[in-house]
Amino acid sequence: MQDNEVLYMGIDGGGTKCRVRIESADGRLLGCGIGGTANPSHGMKIVIDSILDATDMALAEANLGGERIKDLVVGAGLAGLHLPTYFSAVAGWQHPFRQLYLSDDLEVANLGAHGGGDGAVIIVGTGFSSVAMVGNHKRVIGGHGFLMGERCSGSWIGHQAVQVALLDQDGLGPKTRLTDLLEAKFNGRGAMLANALVGFCAKDFGAIAPLVFEAAALKDEVANKILDNSAQFVAQVAKLLLESKPPRLCLVGSIAERLSDRLEPHIAKAVVPLMEQPESGAIYLARNEFSNTMAANRKP
Amino acid sequence: MQDNEVLYMGIDGGGTKCRVRIESADGRLLGCGIGGTANPSHGMKIVIDSILDATDMALAEANLGGERIKDLVVGAGLAGLHLPTYFSAVAGWQHPFRQLYLSDDLEVANLGAHGGGDGAVIIVGTGFSSVAMVGNHKRVIGGHGFLMGERCSGSWIGHQAVQVALLDQDGLGPKTRLTDLLEAKFNGRGAMLANALVGFCAKDFGAIAPLVFEAAALKDEVANKILDNSAQFVAQVAKLLLESKPPRLCLVGSIAERLSDRLEPHIAKAVVPLMEQPESGAIYLARNEFSNTMAANRKP
Repeated sequence: MQDNEVLYMGIDGGGTKCRVRIESADGRLLGCGIGGTANPSHGMKIVIDSILDATDMALAEANLGGERIKDLVVGAGLAGLHLPTYFSAVAGWQHPFRQLYLSDDLEVANLGAHGGGDGAVIIVGTGFSSVAMVGNHKRVIGGHGFLMGERCSGSWIGHQAVQVALLDQDGLGPKTRLTDLLEAKFNGRGAMLANALVGFCAKDFGAIAPLVFEAAALKDEVANKILDNSAQFVAQVAKLLLESKPPRLCLVGSIAERLSDRLEPHIAKAVVPLMEQPESGAIYLARNEFSNTMAANRKP
Repeated sequence: MQDNEVLYMGIDGGGTKCRVRIESADGRLLGCGIGGTANPSHGMKIVIDSILDATDMALAEANLGGERIKDLVVGAGLAGLHLPTYFSAVAGWQHPFRQLYLSDDLEVANLGAHGGGDGAVIIVGTGFSSVAMVGNHKRVIGGHGFLMGERCSGSWIGHQAVQVALLDQDGLGPKTRLTDLLEAKFNGRGAMLANALVGFCAKDFGAIAPLVFEAAALKDEVANKILDNSAQFVAQVAKLLLESKPPRLCLVGSIAERLSDRLEPHIAKAVVPLMEQPESGAIYLARNEFSNTMAANRKP
């Protein structure tokens, strides 16, 4: 490998973590890295820090010097980038890479899930979004952001947990184990719990979601209702995506597996495993866009 | 009236507006003023600006010079001040008044509603909170802040409107007139609507609530369901407060009247009119606390 050879990097930027993968021009995996959230709703400084941290880690794992960052042709699929406000914030970044091609987390998840081909994905991580891509047809459902009625995201589930606990404590809702679990986690209940949550964002509420799965495993009815409600929402989305006749349908994201256990059997049967992870999908994006750029440059 | 005579000012600081009232020592109304939000969740600069704007307006209406601000003994009931984070932020203010006594919007609403006596109030404005005060007994329900499961606040209702519109547009929820009303208000739908809402806070969502009342008046089922759900929540709260046997129960706040039309008759019957507004309740607070301070100072 020459010292200035083009390298490809894919970035999957979710609401809580960003994962990167570096490959050589001929497709060999060289290194991987992980950083914090790369969702621009948390501000551009965090996005840049997260991406550069993950890049440093991946270059080091690949035994490449930090100066090789200038040879990286990067495809980045970041949560929130379908919203113009966030797209333009990231597009203005004076990045250190050879090239940076931007898309949203949905497109790279779909590219990865189906090995670069057509299909549909439902992302259920900190946030939720979904797409079916079949030829030139593209149908996007959801992806509207934190607390926009998308009942299956980790942040929604965590936010529900807080609400049912506060209602329980006020005598306005049913008893739930989530009340004690949240009291233990935040050292307080009622107004003290509400106080601890001041300034909480999607990622912070997403971090509460595991308590709901924990309470559900202990047969807590309220927690099970939250999760069944989320699974029903996923099923509703899946039915709409299947109208586009995608050759494959995948569920991606940190809570995908735990929610898929709750899907109605005929929906669960339609879901197939991922071929590759979203960061590999981002490398498809980088390769496709870079070869288009090169082709355009070669035109007389 | 002497030039350095003590004047009393009451502040009712809600999520959207703050209202002040200045009285002479012998209880005559001298002037009123109004400013922006005085909820510290929007930051201390906004709180201070809102209070000082309203104070200037009230002093001017009272034909008093701006220098008389130093003679004001102020009682302030501000939304959010039951949370320690916000209380300590406001308590640190180097204010220009003779005295500043702080409480939350709930206490001053209750003092005003019952002319300084015992009773219960439910505040339904931008936010929601409620209290029953009977002798030394105090029961607070709610007041946990934006989107904490309190289904009757203006911000909750506005936030519901956005969700049902986005779900309608994605084919995941029933048709509603709110979709068109929101599209007209924000010049966009789907992702464009979500994009317009980036950074929206409680006050901003509260400003959407009137569209829900508008759609409900046009017999939109989805809007009516949101509002009936809110009224049921108010009724549930009222029942709990009535367990404390308050001599009076009032509904206060910008959407109180419109929600009370939807209450079950036996709850609606238990609700009586306010005696005075919350800013007058804040003057009770100022007078009580100031006479305590004076009494303490006179002790040897």
